Amino acid sequence: MHPEVLLQMHSVGICGSDVHYWQHGRIGDFVVTKPMVLGHEASGRVVKVGSAVKHLEAGDRVAIEPGAPREMDEFFKIGRYNLSPTIFFCATPPDDGNLCRYYKHSADFCYKLPNNVTFEEGALIEPLSVGIHACRRAGVTIGSSVLICGAGPIGLVCLLVAKAMGASHVVITDMLPERLTMAKELGADFQLKVNRGVEPQQLAKSVEDLLGAQPHVTIECSGVESSIQTAIYATRSGGAVALVGVGPQMVTVPLINAALREVDIRGVFRYCNTWPMAIAMLASGKVNVKPLVTHRFPLEQAAQAFETTRQGLGIKVMLKCDPKDQKP
Amino acid sequence: MHPEVLLQMHSVGICGSDVHYWQHGRIGDFVVTKPMVLGHEASGRVVKVGSAVKHLEAGDRVAIEPGAPREMDEFFKIGRYNLSPTIFFCATPPDDGNLCRYYKHSADFCYKLPNNVTFEEGALIEPLSVGIHACRRAGVTIGSSVLICGAGPIGLVCLLVAKAMGASHVVITDMLPERLTMAKELGADFQLKVNRGVEPQQLAKSVEDLLGAQPHVTIECSGVESSIQTAIYATRSGGAVALVGVGPQMVTVPLINAALREVDIRGVFRYCNTWPMAIAMLASGKVNVKPLVTHRFPLEQAAQAFETTRQGLGIKVMLKCDPKDQKP
Amino acid sequence: MHPEVLLQMHSVGICGSDVHYWQHGRIGDFVVTKPMVLGHEASGRVVKVGSAVKHLEAGDRVAIEPGAPREMDEFFKIGRYNLSPTIFFCATPPDDGNLCRYYKHSADFCYKLPNNVTFEEGALIEPLSVGIHACRRAGVTIGSSVLICGAGPIGLVCLLVAKAMGASHVVITDMLPERLTMAKELGADFQLKVNRGVEPQQLAKSVEDLLGAQPHVTIECSGVESSIQTAIYATRSGGAVALVGVGPQMVTVPLINAALREVDIRGVFRYCNTWPMAIAMLASGKVNVKPLVTHRFPLEQAAQAFETTRQGLGIKVMLKCDPKDQKP
Amino acid sequence: MHPEVLLQMHSVGICGSDVHYWQHGRIGDFVVTKPMVLGHEASGRVVKVGSAVKHLEAGDRVAIEPGAPREMDEFFKIGRYNLSPTIFFCATPPDDGNLCRYYKHSADFCYKLPNNVTFEEGALIEPLSVGIHACRRAGVTIGSSVLICGAGPIGLVCLLVAKAMGASHVVITDMLPERLTMAKELGADFQLKVNRGVEPQQLAKSVEDLLGAQPHVTIECSGVESSIQTAIYATRSGGAVALVGVGPQMVTVPLINAALREVDIRGVFRYCNTWPMAIAMLASGKVNVKPLVTHRFPLEQAAQAFETTRQGLGIKVMLKCDPKDQKP
Repeated sequence: MHPEVLLQMHSVGICGSDVHYWQHGRIGDFVVTKPMVLGHEASGRVVKVGSAVKHLEAGDRVAIEPGAPREMDEFFKIGRYNLSPTIFFCATPPDDGNLCRYYKHSADFCYKLPNNVTFEEGALIEPLSVGIHACRRAGVTIGSSVLICGAGPIGLVCLLVAKAMGASHVVITDMLPERLTMAKELGADFQLKVNRGVEPQQLAKSVEDLLGAQPHVTIECSGVESSIQTAIYATRSGGAVALVGVGPQMVTVPLINAALREVDIRGVFRYCNTWPMAIAMLASGKVNVKPLVTHRFPLEQAAQAFETTRQGLGIKVMLKCDPKDQKP
Repeated sequence: MHPEVLLQMHSVGICGSDVHYWQHGRIGDFVVTKPMVLGHEASGRVVKVGSAVKHLEAGDRVAIEPGAPREMDEFFKIGRYNLSPTIFFCATPPDDGNLCRYYKHSADFCYKLPNNVTFEEGALIEPLSVGIHACRRAGVTIGSSVLICGAGPIGLVCLLVAKAMGASHVVITDMLPERLTMAKELGADFQLKVNRGVEPQQLAKSVEDLLGAQPHVTIECSGVESSIQTAIYATRSGGAVALVGVGPQMVTVPLINAALREVDIRGVFRYCNTWPMAIAMLASGKVNVKPLVTHRFPLEQAAQAFETTRQGLGIKVMLKCDPKDQKP
Repeated sequence: MHPEVLLQMHSVGICGSDVHYWQHGRIGDFVVTKPMVLGHEASGRVVKVGSAVKHLEAGDRVAIEPGAPREMDEFFKIGRYNLSPTIFFCATPPDDGNLCRYYKHSADFCYKLPNNVTFEEGALIEPLSVGIHACRRAGVTIGSSVLICGAGPIGLVCLLVAKAMGASHVVITDMLPERLTMAKELGADFQLKVNRGVEPQQLAKSVEDLLGAQPHVTIECSGVESSIQTAIYATRSGGAVALVGVGPQMVTVPLINAALREVDIRGVFRYCNTWPMAIAMLASGKVNVKPLVTHRFPLEQAAQAFETTRQGLGIKVMLKCDPKDQKP
Repeated sequence: MHPEVLLQMHSVGICGSDVHYWQHGRIGDFVVTKPMVLGHEASGRVVKVGSAVKHLEAGDRVAIEPGAPREMDEFFKIGRYNLSPTIFFCATPPDDGNLCRYYKHSADFCYKLPNNVTFEEGALIEPLSVGIHACRRAGVTIGSSVLICGAGPIGLVCLLVAKAMGASHVVITDMLPERLTMAKELGADFQLKVNRGVEPQQLAKSVEDLLGAQPHVTIECSGVESSIQTAIYATRSGGAVALVGVGPQMVTVPLINAALREVDIRGVFRYCNTWPMAIAMLASGKVNVKPLVTHRFPLEQAAQAFETTRQGLGIKVMLKCDPKDQKP
């Protein structure tokens, strides 16, 4: 139905969800029942365009938005197409991903990269988009103080975006010191090491002490129950908690604490309408995602690449799909 | 600090919280440690005005907003003064309420009633304000389909307000058939009796079946854990759940279900900036709160009035404080 | 590209723009250069559906949204498809309208009518949508006081919608007394006859006097320069003026008066995302558009029907396209 | 009525409005009819606090918000106190400003400066606040492309704030090349020299050519009619024009062009709720206003300082009111 383009894939980042499908064959209700191509953080070069395609031509370098709505339903019409239940999404079963040599995608969800944005930056727009959508949903703005729970790849892109949107002070938490070190290098104002067993209310107090006041906004990236509790206790009255991390079906939380202080709790499901602004930010140099790439492997060594991500080494592992161009 | 007015009290409604303080001496962290006057749903007549008062004069009939901020803090400055931690609030310890003969209040939080709005309507602006704030926070608008959990006095004012704001279809739930009957009379499009032990997901499905689609918005007025669960399951992706009912500190809820469908969870703490619009609605006849008053007692029979509310009889019990004028 | 449906047309209302194209062959930059079918306020019955159509089947009664975006551009993706420069729009040259016997349209922009909504109500969703979009853009909400400049068909639908969204008081202006009479019947709280030569500031003062305060919101439906001036002067600080009427390219206005009082000026271009909520309102009986239809003609008498509209007789003239069913 | 503090003034910037009152004795309807102290961009040290003051003590260094509402009116209650018609405002007749040795102000509108924020930065929060309020009203966010018309002091603070809020590309215009040079140094991505007589539509086209697309947002800081016209033509459909510059009462503008493309026009009157976020930004080093100060004079040389501003030399002239501490 949609005009399509054929792409020669260049760079594909490995996401935690890719590893999870590889290891467990499912995430929640999404079950892999037949062979499925992984990969959804991707960029490539246009090889061929469908007859109806106007904004792209062969040779264009593009970043790929992996979610392309199939139906013009109520969600799509109001601009929240990420909520469309029938959306195509790379590497969410049964839809194949784009960790391969050649890949066909909806032309409307391929975005031309300017010359000064690399393929890897293009691929990183996917995780960056999660950060943009999370910060936007959370209402980060100039002068915001922000708590980010979890300093994994998603926590780090939230950090980059929060600072780019004008957050004055960001506290980031994690259990692993090396992640906090990386967060510091990427601009976190305060790092807080979380130790097993610490009480959420006590942790919330530590955040307040670091900032001199409760944060306006909290972005929860771990999905862990105690961390969601901390997020609620920590956030200033009238503020918001954005839930990015995915945890168990049921959690026990102090919802009334949030309600009586009008701390909104807002979910973040993937993203929508982020690629153009992300490209603008990368092209203008306002956001620097390059330090996120810590490992690169040619496509042939995909197993080793996945193993690296599985072990939690580095931040982002990039697979290089074009045998003739393995550059960033 | 604030200019004040002295009021001769006329009508004061009894709220569930009044009864709770009477019976239990506390609500959560608010503990009654010394004698406290109850009452915060009130209207009266101005007897005397402070020298700095410009907008009122002796003889004016006024509705009383029971929360009057004491400090010009960050919350007050942004227009969310209900979140100010030092706010004065009638009948929340240690602040006295206005169920009495004469009462002094901040002039800025007394609103002149037009001639065609009765004292009792003026007193009912307080619960009506909860409905306004809840519907506003939930984002009710033209064509919204709305689920209201609980058909007590607050559920009913939410119903009145939701319809006034353009909701096309409202489903209301309760365990008591007589409450549902009252809701039907007040304009509910669908009533759903909740039976003990019904599964939240099954109840959510019943709501969807009644409406032909999931409601855009849910207003939870019971505070009960299973009802909050129902509220989350029932609400359409991209919609909102407003939490009005106050329940236990910790609740176990399918937060990830809400998060992955971007159903926002928004607390409702009292209200702010509702009196002028409520008066406008009453004066124009757009909202009719008169049927809510089912019982009246003179102030001397306060104990009996409280007992009536405690037993859950009727909807709203009104105490008449002016011995010479016991009219509505 | 889009899945389509073939419709047997039933009822088509005549809009001022239809008459303008008929009489002048152009509206602004839109010029009729070859024969063009008129009509864009329409409803019909599905005769045949494309293979990809899932939500409709032959026999369904539908209302037609005349604007169907052709491209998935930036405006469509954020849910503001009315701003898409390449949108298909019935009876805007060079796109044909649907004042005919049979008509093919994008299935995604045909909306099934419930049994209790008539074809004519379905056709009237188009002008009603202008009112919805205008009131939504203007921020009408519970307790709003509203000034509507102009009591023609669009002013009247704005009135209906403003009241449905909770406006407490609506003042409507016009130069023609009979229009004001109709507005009164449809629910306007105050009518203000505008006489030629009256000063905008004086008119604004009259509005304030009627309401007892400046209106929160003004909806300008005339496009006339002096009326835009009035709209600005009349609106309360912090409020909004929605511009619905289309007038001359350049107008001389007290923009600084609006700016220094933060009265926002917001344009209204057609509508987007209004059909579902309009159907919900009609189905629930919350809005009654039936009194708007003052004349009916069979399709064969189209010339006479257009002449009726041209002379400004009545409110809405309806053309009946199905020879076998001329009922509302 | 409000608790007050006595301040020893330290640094006071000179604003164009100060010079205008000095030269002309009036701005619009505000007429100087008796001697009036000028100055409203100010910071100082607390000397004495009123008995009700809790958040400040003698010795504290503070930035002064010059507008302090006198009444708890409808505007104040909703958090838009800048619109309160009875607000006290430094150096707007008949209210005295703070260009003096000692000055008494509402304690609630004095904000403690952190140690790493200088007095001059504190004084510059006033113009910075105009930029914050303008960018906030205009809806600047991550990835926004922004046109700023006018590179005077206000245009420059809008530039600083737009970049801090995530604008990816900013074009700034002016007639004076030296102002554009300063804008470039402060981070403008593109500078566009405006020549007398250039057509607004042509200028708008130049902006589009520079950016590769129309800007999402335009901030008009000149007040000049042709510049407002340019702002409207230049802005992308669905975007916004913020009017900051104050020009003539009546202007002739293509309002219908804005309306049909839903380009909102939003006024900016001073600011509200900006000091805390401005202090957070200065303390965190996210915004650097220090380069704005190009001249300093001791208070005794005020005449010379005003003359410097009158001649348009440099950007911001700072008067030093504390004879014992003339440091930044």
